[in-house]
Amino acid sequence: MIKAQLLKGFQDVYGNDAELKELICNQIISELKLFGYSPLETPVLEYAEVLMGNIGEDEKLIYNFKDHGERHVAMKYDHTVSLARFVANNHMEIGLPFKRYQLGPSFRADKPQRGRTRQFTQLDLDILGTDEILAEVEILNLIVKCYKKLGFKNIKIQINDRKLVDSIIENLKISESNQKDVFICLDKTDKIGLKAACELMVERGISKEITDKLFEIFNIQGSNKEVLNHLKEFNTTTLSSIIDYADKLGFEENLNINFGVVRGLDYYTGLVFEVVDEQIKIGSFGGGGRYENLCERFTHEKISGIGYSFGIERLMIAMQDLKLDSQMQENKVLIVALDPNYRSNAFALNNKLSKEKIISEIALKDSKLAKQIKYAEKKSCNYLILIGEDEVKNQTFTLKNLESQEQETLDFDGLIKNLKD
Amino acid sequence: MIKAQLLKGFQDVYGNDAELKELICNQIISELKLFGYSPLETPVLEYAEVLMGNIGEDEKLIYNFKDHGERHVAMKYDHTVSLARFVANNHMEIGLPFKRYQLGPSFRADKPQRGRTRQFTQLDLDILGTDEILAEVEILNLIVKCYKKLGFKNIKIQINDRKLVDSIIENLKISESNQKDVFICLDKTDKIGLKAACELMVERGISKEITDKLFEIFNIQGSNKEVLNHLKEFNTTTLSSIIDYADKLGFEENLNINFGVVRGLDYYTGLVFEVVDEQIKIGSFGGGGRYENLCERFTHEKISGIGYSFGIERLMIAMQDLKLDSQMQENKVLIVALDPNYRSNAFALNNKLSKEKIISEIALKDSKLAKQIKYAEKKSCNYLILIGEDEVKNQTFTLKNLESQEQETLDFDGLIKNLKD
Repeated sequence: MIKAQLLKGFQDVYGNDAELKELICNQIISELKLFGYSPLETPVLEYAEVLMGNIGEDEKLIYNFKDHGERHVAMKYDHTVSLARFVANNHMEIGLPFKRYQLGPSFRADKPQRGRTRQFTQLDLDILGTDEILAEVEILNLIVKCYKKLGFKNIKIQINDRKLVDSIIENLKISESNQKDVFICLDKTDKIGLKAACELMVERGISKEITDKLFEIFNIQGSNKEVLNHLKEFNTTTLSSIIDYADKLGFEENLNINFGVVRGLDYYTGLVFEVVDEQIKIGSFGGGGRYENLCERFTHEKISGIGYSFGIERLMIAMQDLKLDSQMQENKVLIVALDPNYRSNAFALNNKLSKEKIISEIALKDSKLAKQIKYAEKKSCNYLILIGEDEVKNQTFTLKNLESQEQETLDFDGLIKNLKD
Repeated sequence: MIKAQLLKGFQDVYGNDAELKELICNQIISELKLFGYSPLETPVLEYAEVLMGNIGEDEKLIYNFKDHGERHVAMKYDHTVSLARFVANNHMEIGLPFKRYQLGPSFRADKPQRGRTRQFTQLDLDILGTDEILAEVEILNLIVKCYKKLGFKNIKIQINDRKLVDSIIENLKISESNQKDVFICLDKTDKIGLKAACELMVERGISKEITDKLFEIFNIQGSNKEVLNHLKEFNTTTLSSIIDYADKLGFEENLNINFGVVRGLDYYTGLVFEVVDEQIKIGSFGGGGRYENLCERFTHEKISGIGYSFGIERLMIAMQDLKLDSQMQENKVLIVALDPNYRSNAFALNNKLSKEKIISEIALKDSKLAKQIKYAEKKSCNYLILIGEDEVKNQTFTLKNLESQEQETLDFDGLIKNLKD
């Protein structure tokens, strides 16, 4: 006999978790559709050279192997690199700007922890083929709408602009060899604080004089507008424009300029952002940014992109922690034929209830009523419908409420009325 | 620069194809939910020993490799084997009978052809933990409903019972070493005819005397009831019972007893079936059956299962061939700000239309109207909304119908009324 075990870092999703996951994805997708996004599905497996060489040091986490034809293939690490490959290949046919969403699994051979599995689900939205700030605004606006729709009340998008940080680095004349260190240390700000991050920079060879200036520049408390005002000698064009639009469109309060947001991925070049909920402490549950050059790996055409990735597993945890997962409750009914002769009647009722959009199932095993009730409870059914001799003769149904234990005999219309209430 | 190429046998799904795919899956899933099925997601990657050793000669098609921890892992070939592993592992917690659906990709390193790719999408429904015939009836009933919902009018489920064929083999005293040959040759009946299939059996060492009898037994034309009557000396319990129920529930006309249906997979032991549409010739677009012993690989518990797998790619082709894919047409609107100053107004309208469940997007690039119209047509938008100085001043919107070229200026309510018609 073979041990029925899962690989470490992989999981089965079932029961309430699976229902919640489906609900989240459906809610987000229906919103994205309303804003003109259409679905795209790129394969799980691609040539390794397509997927590798884009994302920096995390590359070692990519599953890759030789296939049956000795091709070096890899499993997708995220949806973005395949998207760039797709758009580079098809931009004439699909037309630019191109807006799409993609839902599906990604794979990283990372150390598993809560909310981080080796196979995980990303729901991405991206716009390619325009570098207008409108794209940034549209994506941020839409993200806020999606989280609000799911019931989140304290969503903050932590935003930063790599170009702004670049302009500061340039202004301070930080040597090229040290520029990446600035980002690496800033990335740790949220965990260790700005002061310690600046000390880390010194350890990496940036002068105390410069890190003191960086501390002064980044050490600002205040509203987004105050922060931008404090930095007005640097390149704040993008962030200012975003804050202005957000103000007019009513979601400025959901944005928070935060220089600690860097996003590890090598391909981001402009706006970068992460979403958090201030009420819970599981870290960000999604991130994104502007990538101007990713498509250049595959085409001479200049195609800039911006996107966001909903991390679905983190989102599930957040919704469970915040008790936002109660929207799923619907009436469910177990139909029990009290005698094998009435099974066709049970089936017929099952079919009729489905036409009324009422969730029902028939008892598939002949067993005592007590056992059927136990099964019904396991399946979170809240009603039982009994079909016996009297019911068939009188064309009625006996409806038992499993919470109140009340029971009444009804005709079909009465039954529907009760179940729809 | 890296060549933006796909692996052979893999594809990007986008545009109308992707929309159709999503529609099909949503329609089927919403139906399955109404019958008490709940979602399950098992991983793409599993221990190779879990996925391999179940399916017979097709095993060589399974993608498998050593992962970062030198574990021998494999990518799923179908959803059924993982399901058996899952149920064996969790049957106490989930309760039996267990009914679930699973939507996701499967992988086979097979020779690509129309409707058969190396990554393909299966939408499965299964019932585990009961061997009552009710499960067979429920699944067949539900399949017919799903295809009808998608618009199919000539669905036939070709059904066969391996136990019936077993009882015939036993009756004819065919030697054990030849029993598999009977199935292998019957499998070819649909392509080459029963006569040639029987000749193949002779080639494989079954006596002419026996194959003549087999020919006589299987060479029946007639209704399902006539076929069963002709075979009444053999074990027709399952098929008779199914035909009786189907008769009462009104889908007997969608069933067709066909001994040529064998299903290659090793794990089927009872009812096997395939779905075809008589109007089109792309072969079956889904198959399933009863598997009594698959769970035994993982548990001492006796857990019988039955299931069906919708092959989504084949279904897409069938719907396109039959022109059933027109249900997808919805109004789509492109909102154009005639001056950058009115972009916030365009965004605001975009948000308001989404609340009315009207699909709209804003023009993300500043360009001449003619170019915007071209973009709108590419995205299958049928309306343009123009926002200029007059519109903003008067709080109106100019709506241009891209088919009729008619244009009118409306207030918000008038706009909504027009777009919802």
